[in-house]
Amino acid sequence: MNRYKLTIEYDGTPFSGWQRQKDLDTVQQRLEEALLPLVKVPTVLYGCGRTDAGVHALGQAAHFNTEFDLDCFRIRECVNARLRDVPIAVLSVEEVSNDFDARFSAIERSYLYKILNRRAKPCVESNRVWHVVPHINAGKMNAAAQCLVGKHDFSSFRAAGCQSSSPIKTLNAISVTREGDLVVVKVYARSFLYRQVRNIVGSLFFVGCGKWSESDFCEVLAAKDRTKAGLAAPARGLYFLGVRYE
Amino acid sequence: MNRYKLTIEYDGTPFSGWQRQKDLDTVQQRLEEALLPLVKVPTVLYGCGRTDAGVHALGQAAHFNTEFDLDCFRIRECVNARLRDVPIAVLSVEEVSNDFDARFSAIERSYLYKILNRRAKPCVESNRVWHVVPHINAGKMNAAAQCLVGKHDFSSFRAAGCQSSSPIKTLNAISVTREGDLVVVKVYARSFLYRQVRNIVGSLFFVGCGKWSESDFCEVLAAKDRTKAGLAAPARGLYFLGVRYE
Repeated sequence: MNRYKLTIEYDGTPFSGWQRQKDLDTVQQRLEEALLPLVKVPTVLYGCGRTDAGVHALGQAAHFNTEFDLDCFRIRECVNARLRDVPIAVLSVEEVSNDFDARFSAIERSYLYKILNRRAKPCVESNRVWHVVPHINAGKMNAAAQCLVGKHDFSSFRAAGCQSSSPIKTLNAISVTREGDLVVVKVYARSFLYRQVRNIVGSLFFVGCGKWSESDFCEVLAAKDRTKAGLAAPARGLYFLGVRYE
Repeated sequence: MNRYKLTIEYDGTPFSGWQRQKDLDTVQQRLEEALLPLVKVPTVLYGCGRTDAGVHALGQAAHFNTEFDLDCFRIRECVNARLRDVPIAVLSVEEVSNDFDARFSAIERSYLYKILNRRAKPCVESNRVWHVVPHINAGKMNAAAQCLVGKHDFSSFRAAGCQSSSPIKTLNAISVTREGDLVVVKVYARSFLYRQVRNIVGSLFFVGCGKWSESDFCEVLAAKDRTKAGLAAPARGLYFLGVRYE
């Protein structure tokens, strides 16, 4: 059996997320269908992480198994040719050993969240950012966010339906920076709870616009109670940035 | 008579360019229609520069005259409310003196050109970049481009249909830089010939992929002959970045 790893970009806007679901258009299904002529039998593409409807990926990773000995360049070209009309592309393909697992071998995942902070709606970045009108202070958001770094019970930022056995996760790093009207949040951790990044960004927004102080935000984390946190920030501002493997 | 200056962003993809044209959907017409309820009579919005079909703007400038004494904030809000369903937005409005002219008072215009240089098609940046597959060397493109700086006869980079009385223009600065798969060209000049930036980028592409040397490129400029230069780079990678006024 041979195993191949794909690195994938997609615009999440038209899809019902990564994971294959009956009667819905998903990234996983599109890719599995595009792989079929190469692998001949229905084959599961195991993703590093699921993304919700509307969430984008710049460096999603996934693997599949096949009895065929395939050429990496040919996999990419064949899959991309079949995905010509949809905003999904395989950036690179590599052959990996059978103990590699796109999900379980990941040692760090990263996400990017883009907020467009201005009065006028997004035009060039439509469906690519969360549009926030009141001025938000990125410096204060960044300062507050630092209390998340390390090993914590993230129950306050865990959405209903999370399949993780534990709410305890280790956040390696988080930063909030501003470039003009764009406020960018970057988050790094081995793994994340369901909607953890969107829930964190939704709460950091309260810090940014002055509704919450830095210590209010840290108390939300300490409360371990989802009802204390802000709403989830919308999917369209979120990008699965990449994965590191050993 | 009062005069107001608008700073405008748009996604050029769905429009037949800036300039009003019979039976075509243009940015100028959309804005003029959105202004009508405020100004009561058909009013021309004078743009700093026309952009072709598919070209984007992050900081287009334009002015209009009205007998009414309008509030700048209200202009922006009313126009943006009417443009809710199209990717055009007024970023800011200021009252200007009657000797200000969005086109003729400009002392420097800037353009940005984005090239996505990789095998796989753009997904997140679809319609926002020129997709170029062969590897291009941004350093060589940047070096070659420097011969354009200063006052030159740009006939080699002037498209048919250019309405400028002279092909002589002064380029203030040009840079080509790479960030990962993205190659970004920035160009600054008081004014540009028709399709000058797209023609320059099309020729710099030949330098980037090794078809032309740095001196070949400079000879194209010296030839003052449009047939010597490369094809125009596509509209979708071009952004009108901004204008400086005195």
